[in-house]
Amino acid sequence: MKVFIVGIGLIGGSFAIDIKAAFNEAEIYGVDQSEEHLDNALSLGLIDHKSNFEGLDLADVVIVAIPVDATVEVLSDILNKVKDDCLVFDVGSTKKKLCETVMSHPKRRNYLAAHPIAGTEFSGPQAAIANLYRGKTNIICEVEKTAFKLQEKGMEIFSRLGMRIRYMDPVSHDKHIAYVSHLSHISSFMLGKTVIEKEKNERDIFDMAGSGFASTVRLAKSSPAMWAPIFKHNKENVIETLQEYISNLNQFKEFMENDDFDEIYKEMENTNHIKTILKGIS
Amino acid sequence: MKVFIVGIGLIGGSFAIDIKAAFNEAEIYGVDQSEEHLDNALSLGLIDHKSNFEGLDLADVVIVAIPVDATVEVLSDILNKVKDDCLVFDVGSTKKKLCETVMSHPKRRNYLAAHPIAGTEFSGPQAAIANLYRGKTNIICEVEKTAFKLQEKGMEIFSRLGMRIRYMDPVSHDKHIAYVSHLSHISSFMLGKTVIEKEKNERDIFDMAGSGFASTVRLAKSSPAMWAPIFKHNKENVIETLQEYISNLNQFKEFMENDDFDEIYKEMENTNHIKTILKGIS
Repeated sequence: MKVFIVGIGLIGGSFAIDIKAAFNEAEIYGVDQSEEHLDNALSLGLIDHKSNFEGLDLADVVIVAIPVDATVEVLSDILNKVKDDCLVFDVGSTKKKLCETVMSHPKRRNYLAAHPIAGTEFSGPQAAIANLYRGKTNIICEVEKTAFKLQEKGMEIFSRLGMRIRYMDPVSHDKHIAYVSHLSHISSFMLGKTVIEKEKNERDIFDMAGSGFASTVRLAKSSPAMWAPIFKHNKENVIETLQEYISNLNQFKEFMENDDFDEIYKEMENTNHIKTILKGIS
Repeated sequence: MKVFIVGIGLIGGSFAIDIKAAFNEAEIYGVDQSEEHLDNALSLGLIDHKSNFEGLDLADVVIVAIPVDATVEVLSDILNKVKDDCLVFDVGSTKKKLCETVMSHPKRRNYLAAHPIAGTEFSGPQAAIANLYRGKTNIICEVEKTAFKLQEKGMEIFSRLGMRIRYMDPVSHDKHIAYVSHLSHISSFMLGKTVIEKEKNERDIFDMAGSGFASTVRLAKSSPAMWAPIFKHNKENVIETLQEYISNLNQFKEFMENDDFDEIYKEMENTNHIKTILKGIS
């Protein structure tokens, strides 16, 4: 099984590690804009061969793990180049624009729209880790538009990597994911910004910040190259979540200004309920 | 050494564990409003004896680990009751109001205002853990107002528990801590609220939420009984941080509305700088 990974960073590289471990016969081909990434991926043993778009006719599986705007640009071309029985799936954090892009492509049935909810705040091939996907949710959109045999091929990979599958339409995916992922990133980036702006003397931040702060701003380490395109793709949904978030923050501030600490207490108590919801998410 | 711990929850209980491990001769007395907490603390082996305010004249050290508003209420009374060579320190997340409260107390020199930057999102005696304080910062305010011998006694405890000490005046403490701790909690609580409100179908949140979301809303599990009084004590500073945070979020939203994704990219890139600042915070 020849697996081409387009974008051999954290996400693509972690697929490479797990697929090599799960499929004896897998050969991994790396494709990346960055020659340095390719060389690193090769020396780290993530890939067996460096390749490029011209090599795609060899592929049995193509995994597209690049920023979502770049995926929109290249997905049709990739589909043009692959064999009839090749599975192409992407792993992007938005799905609507991608599904629209290839809606009328003659090889639409070779494409599977996937979103494994997995990652870390790091990036590049050296950030790739084993078992990143184990126990994680993989959201598949428009599964009915993928050829049955290729659905099966995809599910075999996802299953051996330990993912659980959820099916969803792309519009619902983008709407929900704005709340549970995209908004978290903005809240974290803006929290980091607010503190950095205020605390010019960084030694003070470092000394006073505890694990709570570290946890809340962890996502502010994420890659802008990955996230700016996600926000662009999911603009309407993200703006809606931001409006609601800002309005909740304004209300909290008003409660404080009015010394209504009973209400502040209630707000927090109601939200403590997140404990139950979060159980089971690592 | 007889150590009285007023409030035998996560923070007080974790002190109990480490002090027993670090001082052979330590005997731990628990004082708590909740009889159930006291019984749990005893059966968990956190304390050697249940006690109450009437027993405080036996104490060599008193650690006050209750919500900051309750500390304001009882601190003078505790100072009234202890021996002349007894050290009393609190561990609250605000320091200005506390220092003011005992400013003119005849036993002001028995009190040390401390804030160990340590904790988890859990609470109660069963949440107490060993080594919670190891490698953490402990901020001491107005150290010059504590008797020299009692400063030494405090430092001996903090040093054996592995804390590093920073000295700060209470006004600066409350101002900085609003940014690096209090604001994180509000951003997390309101993020949790926003998502819970929107996603009535909790199964969807659970399935789509990844470790990024979990990390960002972790603090929304925190105890309202602890946090409402902190926000009350630090009202002005917290409102200021909230204003700046909301204004940064509004600006981000405007960039999105204007399709200015270059600016969005820059915002994130500048904030990535938090990586360097966070290095070393666990």
